[in-house]
Amino acid sequence: MRRLTSVFGGAAEPSKGGNPDSNTLISDMTTVKAIKEGIAVEKPIYNHVTGLLDPPELIKPPKIFVIEGLHPLYDARVRDLLDFSIYLDISNEVKFAWKIQNNKLMLYNCLMEMKRDMAERGHSLESIKANPQKQYADTVIEVLPTQLIPDDNEGKYLRVRLIMKEGVKYFNPVYLFDEGSTISWIPCGRKLTCSYPGIKFTYGPDTYYGHEVSVLEMDGQFDRLDELIYVESHLSNISTKFYGEITQQMLKHADFPGSNNGTGLFQTIVGLKIRDLYEQLTASKTAAPLEATKA
Amino acid sequence: MRRLTSVFGGAAEPSKGGNPDSNTLISDMTTVKAIKEGIAVEKPIYNHVTGLLDPPELIKPPKIFVIEGLHPLYDARVRDLLDFSIYLDISNEVKFAWKIQNNKLMLYNCLMEMKRDMAERGHSLESIKANPQKQYADTVIEVLPTQLIPDDNEGKYLRVRLIMKEGVKYFNPVYLFDEGSTISWIPCGRKLTCSYPGIKFTYGPDTYYGHEVSVLEMDGQFDRLDELIYVESHLSNISTKFYGEITQQMLKHADFPGSNNGTGLFQTIVGLKIRDLYEQLTASKTAAPLEATKA
Repeated sequence: MRRLTSVFGGAAEPSKGGNPDSNTLISDMTTVKAIKEGIAVEKPIYNHVTGLLDPPELIKPPKIFVIEGLHPLYDARVRDLLDFSIYLDISNEVKFAWKIQNNKLMLYNCLMEMKRDMAERGHSLESIKANPQKQYADTVIEVLPTQLIPDDNEGKYLRVRLIMKEGVKYFNPVYLFDEGSTISWIPCGRKLTCSYPGIKFTYGPDTYYGHEVSVLEMDGQFDRLDELIYVESHLSNISTKFYGEITQQMLKHADFPGSNNGTGLFQTIVGLKIRDLYEQLTASKTAAPLEATKA
Repeated sequence: MRRLTSVFGGAAEPSKGGNPDSNTLISDMTTVKAIKEGIAVEKPIYNHVTGLLDPPELIKPPKIFVIEGLHPLYDARVRDLLDFSIYLDISNEVKFAWKIQNNKLMLYNCLMEMKRDMAERGHSLESIKANPQKQYADTVIEVLPTQLIPDDNEGKYLRVRLIMKEGVKYFNPVYLFDEGSTISWIPCGRKLTCSYPGIKFTYGPDTYYGHEVSVLEMDGQFDRLDELIYVESHLSNISTKFYGEITQQMLKHADFPGSNNGTGLFQTIVGLKIRDLYEQLTASKTAAPLEATKA
């Protein structure tokens, strides 16, 4: 039975989850290792409401094993078991704007929560900050305020960056026009007209925590179908199986938040990349079934 | 006998040439009209040394008729006879830097000349300024100081802009990656390494004296053959007949000033554009020999 181990990092918010203590980490590592080896695992489930452990749940090895949480990249032993890792990094400005948008009253809660973090969880926060998990991710999706509107703090328009590590086996970073060069592109012009404030893409090589990466950035949002398909047609290495697959995927989930901006576009692209990775990985296992999973 | 009338505007320096008086303009118009109709013309030649007219010279109608001078776009009657026009617009900063580079002593001459212009030729200067010929050109090559080095005034590195009018018959503006959108491109990166200060291209739609134009800009210079061929391979609508023709042309004239920067690149491109224009124009005349030349 073939399978792919994958992880979804989630926004690092130590304030929301528990401490990455050693017991939890060992338990995580053992679970991931067993499942990757094709063994079903009975895993105790932490109950966020009672703060206690619920009765264990049987986890059967799936084809694609996704781990989502706050600290999955914290421990090197877990990291080494992952075939691909993604970290969603939402900037404080955007988190704050989103909370305000949801409910003005949440501003109070948010401030209280921040205060509690500083007072009660200072140590945990510091230990996480000293070991930022995002440096280990193969891909980071960074969500930032727009730069298309000066001093915008509404959080309506987003600038989203897809940071892709170079040299990851079975993962070829997406690029715009010319691989490895530095490009900025405003597609709105003679052939494509866009509504205010438009769309701007940036692409180029960079470094991220000392690693060589390629960064694709989208600022602004899609307002019409032709904008989306136009952009898709100019991206390369997107691992689609037919022309317009990204557009089709995004239209299928048009009601999801972020489906008209970089968060939706890059999550869709990462989804296609995982499928591609899965197919290459399983093909290589078929070719050499006794080889180790991790290159 | 087929022919193409073309003009080379040259940097507008009223200080260097005479007044665009009505006699000269009528004479120009008559000459151009006759030659375009296939009639040889005896043209009196102004002698810049003596200030008098030398004996007339017989000008036989050539296949491509190039008019070069200071005021060829000044008069609408002459302009209407031209199939394509190019204006070379060298910024004052660059002119000044070049004069200093040529000879430090020329600085004095340059200042004296400027003083004389202001005093003696004030009227002519004003009348030219009120009717800038460059607005009528189908293509303008603008030569500016680099922006790659902050506050550079050496004039060693140049930022050169190729301003191409839209809607000119038989002339399709060059573009970079995506026609009609706004792009900036630093080709120096993973695939192409460049020496300091690198090369930067910009492309996009714009307006110029109220006309819709496309602008291609190159800042910096080529230091190696692979840089030049890499850039050529990413430009579109360049009217080459084989891959690498621009590079070949520029290498052929590698000793010409500007052969390693945007002035050389854009002059080469304009040359290819004129060939293309000539071929289309003569083909259309063969197809419909009685039609007017100018669309």
